[in-house]
Amino acid sequence: MAASTKDTSSRIITLTTDFGRRDHYVAAMKGVILSIAPTVRIVDVTHEIEPHNVIHGAFILRQIWPWYPPDTIHLAVVDPGVGSDRRIILGRYDGRYLIAPDNGLVTFVHRQTPAEMMHVVEDRRYFLPHLSATFHGRDIMAPAAAHLASGVKPRDFGRATDCLEVVPVAHRADKDGGVLRGTVLYADHFGNLVTNIGAEQLPSGAARAGLVVFVDGGAIGPIRSTFCDVPASEPIALIGSGETLEIAVNCGNAVERFGPAPKVTVKIE
Amino acid sequence: MAASTKDTSSRIITLTTDFGRRDHYVAAMKGVILSIAPTVRIVDVTHEIEPHNVIHGAFILRQIWPWYPPDTIHLAVVDPGVGSDRRIILGRYDGRYLIAPDNGLVTFVHRQTPAEMMHVVEDRRYFLPHLSATFHGRDIMAPAAAHLASGVKPRDFGRATDCLEVVPVAHRADKDGGVLRGTVLYADHFGNLVTNIGAEQLPSGAARAGLVVFVDGGAIGPIRSTFCDVPASEPIALIGSGETLEIAVNCGNAVERFGPAPKVTVKIE
Amino acid sequence: MAASTKDTSSRIITLTTDFGRRDHYVAAMKGVILSIAPTVRIVDVTHEIEPHNVIHGAFILRQIWPWYPPDTIHLAVVDPGVGSDRRIILGRYDGRYLIAPDNGLVTFVHRQTPAEMMHVVEDRRYFLPHLSATFHGRDIMAPAAAHLASGVKPRDFGRATDCLEVVPVAHRADKDGGVLRGTVLYADHFGNLVTNIGAEQLPSGAARAGLVVFVDGGAIGPIRSTFCDVPASEPIALIGSGETLEIAVNCGNAVERFGPAPKVTVKIE
Repeated sequence: MAASTKDTSSRIITLTTDFGRRDHYVAAMKGVILSIAPTVRIVDVTHEIEPHNVIHGAFILRQIWPWYPPDTIHLAVVDPGVGSDRRIILGRYDGRYLIAPDNGLVTFVHRQTPAEMMHVVEDRRYFLPHLSATFHGRDIMAPAAAHLASGVKPRDFGRATDCLEVVPVAHRADKDGGVLRGTVLYADHFGNLVTNIGAEQLPSGAARAGLVVFVDGGAIGPIRSTFCDVPASEPIALIGSGETLEIAVNCGNAVERFGPAPKVTVKIE
Repeated sequence: MAASTKDTSSRIITLTTDFGRRDHYVAAMKGVILSIAPTVRIVDVTHEIEPHNVIHGAFILRQIWPWYPPDTIHLAVVDPGVGSDRRIILGRYDGRYLIAPDNGLVTFVHRQTPAEMMHVVEDRRYFLPHLSATFHGRDIMAPAAAHLASGVKPRDFGRATDCLEVVPVAHRADKDGGVLRGTVLYADHFGNLVTNIGAEQLPSGAARAGLVVFVDGGAIGPIRSTFCDVPASEPIALIGSGETLEIAVNCGNAVERFGPAPKVTVKIE
Repeated sequence: MAASTKDTSSRIITLTTDFGRRDHYVAAMKGVILSIAPTVRIVDVTHEIEPHNVIHGAFILRQIWPWYPPDTIHLAVVDPGVGSDRRIILGRYDGRYLIAPDNGLVTFVHRQTPAEMMHVVEDRRYFLPHLSATFHGRDIMAPAAAHLASGVKPRDFGRATDCLEVVPVAHRADKDGGVLRGTVLYADHFGNLVTNIGAEQLPSGAARAGLVVFVDGGAIGPIRSTFCDVPASEPIALIGSGETLEIAVNCGNAVERFGPAPKVTVKIE
């Protein structure tokens, strides 16, 4: 594997995996990347995606997407189907690249913004010479990301495609009569529950101030501005940093209070 | 957000947070930083500060302070008051910068060494254009750190201040008659208990060798030089790498033996 | 500690420790490295080696060894004997360097490939000026790695040696009559069990296809190609990404099924 002589010091490759931090898998991928593109910048997004949980990975990718500069390469490996005939894809959305197994990891990014291009990663010139059956993150996806950073064109990796696996999860809440029926997409480290009720689905101004949020049928009050608007240990609904409704407990943990996936509803009419 | 054209490749921004490694919060901050200062070096100190535990964060900052080169920017986000009127501050101590909420995170660094300057971070030119109510780490502190690394002057971020929140924790042990009455400031990953009894509070040489250390009233012996000075599974007192007295168990775990916060005393006269 | 003026931006220092991610220890080491070699690239391999588990650390080092470019410096700190008279060594294998306590961390790399050179790290010019008794990772090994990256010659750190601590663990399975009697070297984050039965110890082609793998005496079937060759929740034996036999459970956890260290045997004649 020859190292590139191109200056890639302004290119970023991010890593999102379910590999954990304890084993050698992430470090092997980084070694492969740096052997091909010695000056690229590698950023760990997280390696603590729940093992094999494609939806969790898809949610994280959507959350970080707007914050990285154009031409960033996001490499995501949650790959329960490794070794099967599932494809590996290389897509571009809003000027940023994604390399991932074609198993739904692209779901939320794909629903948010149209794909600008999409190719299958299949040209073995850009793989490691010897492929294992169980670690395509190291043997295919890491070298593909490094070659892309080094100037290989997306079309050189394989044929164009427009057929993608997308997981059937509701990106935004259903509106049922005058009621938004939301579900929890993600429970974070603090125990905050991130729902799929988008800020843009809610009325604004005074009309928003008059709404009441229900968690599993129980009212927890109006949509507040910030944690400090309720006393410690009280539940609160607010618009989170991802611009959707979140359920939290001030200085506490909403997962402990409500479980990881309560139903969240807001009557808006 | 325009990327700086200034070469920041020799500038370091470190991150100390309670965000954990599982979510997208840290990666969003890194994306914001790299969008503004593409060549800055980002170093993770830890993201496993106990959620909302400002003292824990303050202790970690104190421990790493001397080891980074001048001009390093330490960004610390343990921010239970996000969205309240708590201020964000930018200080310089011993040639290194700290950007953090004004909630006591600065406590131990501030007690150790005088502040060379202190400003409020309040000029919205250096914030992201849209502010969330719950994530000022991403929307204010990360861009402020990146702009500082890119050459913005500390005074440009806001007015000078000399009024700071400092947590009332004893940086050093009380001397009560001839007895040093210490408390545990931190229990580390190995179960070692780091006390606030400073090496400089103890006599040196032969006088130190004659001392006896008590944990919750029980004698555990003199102050030793190194773990190997007692048999495996025996408790030991020694001067730790932060130059304070630590209680450990050789090849074992002092938290399991003594709990996380025993009283530690040394009779020195 | 004067920073080097040499451009070290193409040099990599990796870190493998049992320090965890919660404390300040890893960040202190990085600060020391960057103070000496400001442009070196630091890569975290893992900081979650089981505390004091030298064999675990040795296994991880072996797994990452082939994937990093020549001249990479691997720094490994699993050091229960810190403060004793155990030595610190600097070795070169296959063009890559290892700096570590001489306590067996080198075991698997050393068995795989001959040492090209081996020196004791003992010249105090390359240590921090003040040595703690408990943190030679920060005070000796981190500065040694940074000075090596900056151009100091291996022989300048201390005398050559060819006497090394190696842990008595079987790198490869014993062949007993016509039976390979394997042991588990490592259980990964997914619960996969990595054995010491090397792919090169097994027949190839049709002869391999006829073999049966036994776990604690119970047959689990032939050696398969990939996880998808058995239904979900079924145990499977396959050649893992480190080119040894692994025991897994498709979409499940082999440690939960078989415990962390079952006996694995294959009758090959």
